[in-house]
This record gives sequence, C-alpha cells and structure tokens, in this order.
Amino acid sequence: MIPRTIERAGGTIRFIDQTLLPERLEIVECTDIERLATAIRRLEVRGAPAIGIAGAYGVALAALQNRNSDFDTFVTEVSAAADYLRGTRPTAVNLGWGIDRVLGAIGRAGSVGSAKDAAVAAADAVAREDEETCRRIGAHGAALLPHNARVLTHCNAGALACATWGTALGVIRSAVADGKNVSVTACETRPLLQGARLTAWELAADGIPVRVITDSTAAFLMRRGEIDCVVVGADRITDDAVFNKIGTYMHAVCARHHQIPFYVAAPLSTFDPGRIESEVLIEERDRAEIAAFNGKQTVPVGVRCTNYAFDTTPLDLISGIITENGVLLPPYDRMP
Amino acid sequence: MIPRTIERAGGTIRFIDQTLLPERLEIVECTDIERLATAIRRLEVRGAPAIGIAGAYGVALAALQNRNSDFDTFVTEVSAAADYLRGTRPTAVNLGWGIDRVLGAIGRAGSVGSAKDAAVAAADAVAREDEETCRRIGAHGAALLPHNARVLTHCNAGALACATWGTALGVIRSAVADGKNVSVTACETRPLLQGARLTAWELAADGIPVRVITDSTAAFLMRRGEIDCVVVGADRITDDAVFNKIGTYMHAVCARHHQIPFYVAAPLSTFDPGRIESEVLIEERDRAEIAAFNGKQTVPVGVRCTNYAFDTTPLDLISGIITENGVLLPPYDRMP
Repeated sequence: MIPRTIERAGGTIRFIDQTLLPERLEIVECTDIERLATAIRRLEVRGAPAIGIAGAYGVALAALQNRNSDFDTFVTEVSAAADYLRGTRPTAVNLGWGIDRVLGAIGRAGSVGSAKDAAVAAADAVAREDEETCRRIGAHGAALLPHNARVLTHCNAGALACATWGTALGVIRSAVADGKNVSVTACETRPLLQGARLTAWELAADGIPVRVITDSTAAFLMRRGEIDCVVVGADRITDDAVFNKIGTYMHAVCARHHQIPFYVAAPLSTFDPGRIESEVLIEERDRAEIAAFNGKQTVPVGVRCTNYAFDTTPLDLISGIITENGVLLPPYDRMP
Repeated sequence: MIPRTIERAGGTIRFIDQTLLPERLEIVECTDIERLATAIRRLEVRGAPAIGIAGAYGVALAALQNRNSDFDTFVTEVSAAADYLRGTRPTAVNLGWGIDRVLGAIGRAGSVGSAKDAAVAAADAVAREDEETCRRIGAHGAALLPHNARVLTHCNAGALACATWGTALGVIRSAVADGKNVSVTACETRPLLQGARLTAWELAADGIPVRVITDSTAAFLMRRGEIDCVVVGADRITDDAVFNKIGTYMHAVCARHHQIPFYVAAPLSTFDPGRIESEVLIEERDRAEIAAFNGKQTVPVGVRCTNYAFDTTPLDLISGIITENGVLLPPYDRMP
C-alpha cells in the first residue's frame, strides 16, 4: 500500500513530492504555508481533492503559527494567508472549498485558542472525509464496471490526487476489491505526464494491470475495440460542464463517437452550483512545460505555445457523474 | 529558405539529421546504404515522401558501389540491398515505391554500366518529381483554404518530410504564396515531437505564423472555435483508410464532431490500390520512446507501453484527399 498523499502530524504537514515520481518516493515535511503554497504551485501536491486538503491544512498551519492574541486581528491575518493560498491555482474548486471549510470553523470560534483547535479539527475532517468520500465514490462506480473491464483513464485521479484511494482510480480499486478483473490504460497526459508517472506508479504498486499510451493513441484503441469505458476525475463541475485535465474533452468526444461510456468520478465538493463554464478561468501554464523537457529544447526559440492546464466537457458527452451520494445521470436536470 | 531535406551530390547523399532539430541544423553526408538504413530507422530522415527518396537513393548507392561485372549477379545483390532497406520501416508505402522505381530502371538496363546510370537517373527523378508533386499538391490544396485560415496540423508533413515544400505544409506554403493569411497550430506529436520540433521549425524559418500545443489540446481549440480546418499528410492510403502518424484519427473524429473540414495531402505514390486497412502492419516502436525522455524516466519500471507509430482513419471521416492530380472527394468510389 502506498503512503498517504498528504497528512498532518502535530504542527507538520507531510506530503509526497509527486514531481519526483516514479523515480523516487520522497515525503516532504512542511511547517509553513509558503512551502505549502510552493508545493501546490509546483504540483508537488496536485489533484483537486488533494489540493483541497492542502488548502485546509495550510489555513490550519497559518492559524497555529499566528501569534496575535486579538481575535479580530487573528482572523484578518489568517484570512489573508488563506487568500494567498487560494491564488496558487485558479481552476480547481476544491482548493477554495477546503480553505473555506477551515475559515468557517475559525469564524465560528470565539477566541484565538479555540479557533486554532477548530482550524486543526476542520482540516483533519477534510482529510478524513476525503477518504470516506473516495470509498463511497468507489463503491458506486464499481457497480458500473463490467467484469474484465478495460478502462481508459487520463491524468491522475487516484490516491495521489486525494488523501488516499482516489476518485477515478478509487472506482477501479473498489471494483478490484469486489473481485472484478480490471485492466487500465493510462494516458501519459502531456505536458507533465501525470498519467505515465503517477497513475501507472500507484496502480502498479497495488498490483492492478496498467499500461501507458501517448494521449493521442486513445482514440485508436477505441477504434480497435480495446477500451470498454472511460473514467476520469474532475477539477470543477459547473451546471453545464466538467473541468478536468486538458485532453479530457478529446476523450469524451472520441468515446461518444465509439459509443463507449464516459464517466466522471468526483466528490460533491467539486461541484460549483449556479456557475457556468464561461464564468470560470482556465489556467494557462508556462510555455516551458511544452517547450523543454529535462533540459532538452523541444520547440524552436521564439515559437509560441498554448498551454491550457484544463479543458471543459459539456455534460451531454458524459454518461454519468459518480459522486459519494450516487451516480448522476443525463439529462442532469437536478445537479447538486 | 531551409536546405533540401535530402539530395545527391555525386556518390554522396546529403540529408538533414532531423533528430537534432530544432536545436541544431546539421547535414549528414553518407556514402553507404548501411548508414542510410540507420538514418531511416532512427528517423534522421522521416516522412513518407522523404523516405521514398531515401530508399531510391539507397538503391542507387548500392548499384554504384557494387563491383560485379556480371549483370545477373549485380541485379541479385542490388535487390538484396533493396530488401534490406525496405525492412527499415514497415508502414509507409512510399519507401517501397521509391525502391521499386530504381529497381525497375536497373532491371530494364542491359548491362551493369547502363544499370548504374539508370539507377542514379531514376533516383534523381524520384527526388525531382517529389518537389513538382508537392507544388502541385500545394496549388490544389491552397484553393481549399479560406483567407485568414487557422489550420491545425499533426506531426510533420512538411519540407522536412519531402525533398522540399511539403505535402500538408506545402498546401500552407502555397496558400501563403498566393497571398493568403494562414496561421498554423502544430500539435507537438508525441512521442517524438515531430510537430513541436520540425513543423514549428520549418514554418518559423519561412516566416509563417505557428504555435505549438500538446496533442490533447486540439479538440479543445476546436470547441473554442479556434480551428478552421485540419490538414495532415499520409504514410499509406488503402482503399478504405488513411494511415498516418498516431493521433491523426483522434483529430479526424474531433473535426467531424465540430464539423470542421479534415484534409489529407499526399502524393499518388502514397496510395496502395487494392489493399485494405486490415492487410497492413502498423509499426509498433520501442517502449523507450514513451518511457524516458532525454535520460529522465517517465514510466515506472516494469509498466508496459503501447507505442503504435501510426493509426488509421476511415475515409468517411475525410473531407478531401489532396493529390498532385486534384482533390479526391467523398464517397471516394474512384480511388487511384
């Protein structure tokens, strides 16, 4: 069993530095929110639920370390730290959700001392509930997978994207735990290769059959009849679309073309009710992620790169959204 | 203007080593077919028309260097060298076509001396005709592009894939030469990044606006309304499908979903009349192309990778096939 992705031990947050996988499994111990913000920005911790937990722990750290005795000043300063954390990644809704859970607990406390206790308890609850949520998502989703299912997934919506177990990969783990044979095709997920590096690593560690393909091979495998369904995670779900790692939309279009079920597995904290796609910023990341790799130049000097971190898939391409409370089905007229 | 991709000077074949681009433009001089076979296998020379030319020049080199005076022995030995070259890459039909053009000229000669002259003349003709063919493809294809066309392309079907000018990029060059504004979105083309490295390099060198995206971003740009048409090359066209770089099929499915025209630009030498898709081997290349990059491990040890070099797109997803003799249109009931 792989270690937990992120957890608290006293005033220290411990997390797996995912940029080092699969070559090296290294746990970082971190006691300040600047380091945690860097970890989120550098994708040492990534995956919507995991950065929700990181956000929650970050606010708890800020609360623990604040030296003010005046409650209003304390709240103002911790809120400023929370805003700083919130700015690290704009698209995933869980980050703000985790931060706001802890801020809310602080706001309801009457003193600095009880606010610190409440912040830690709220952050721990976010992490603990994430595991419960993933196992419930897993149970609901496992029922959708046939025996001998050959599942395509994109990016990493696994244990490494959560506290443990995973959302999309939680569905697969739960199906395997139920005694089903499941094999996984992991799309490498350019530019940062979370599929090749992380999904392949954590499934292989758990003994679940997995192979890696380039992202552009997925449609061809569908055409060859080698894929039974697609299961991916989500970073945000508005009333009209699923935001997830760039490439998700392409898989959804191709799955529809081949009449292959396309499922999204995500906790309710991923939903952004009342919001629509056009209101949400799609994070554009640095050109260097595409233009070089491990020191080798891959794009000519001066040539522009467009590097969206996410794309959007309209709900009508999605066969079901697997949440901890059950599976939402088309036409999605009663979204959470 | 960039140098010619491959050309002959006396008994020497000169070619651009495309594995070094975009960091370094280096011309290799080669006088034996072993070196040329290595160049084809290592993709120093790649692109269906260019490896057709390389195959033709390779047979010419084998003929020039053969020391037999007996014509039958000469033909037997040169044919064996040709078979060796033919085995370097299995999918592109142009390689065999270029080889057979020169073998045919040798077979029609009556003596070793005249066969050597005929081999060189036939190989030179393959290279010369390739340029003429590309310019005719360009002219036919340019007429299909609207003014201010935003063209998506995949891999490199450019000057670097031919003697010069290009097939898919020849269409773009011809449209620009006609005074049209054209901008290009080049898919990086995993795993070997021919789009990022080569297409971006040769278009930027010619002053044609180009940007690079990851392959999985293409569908999202179609959804955003940023792509007016897709133009790609081909490695083989059977009576039912187009074989081209892995990822082509995905773009074709997504283009159809968005009702965006999807064109294939290829010389008639790419057609394989009377053959159907299922009869052709799809080259699977080394796991290492996906599992590591510039010395960095990207896939866990022991995890399998599926690395098809090509995929197949059924003709019904293709809006037109641009050849030197004009544009073939659906329902493609009179294939060449």
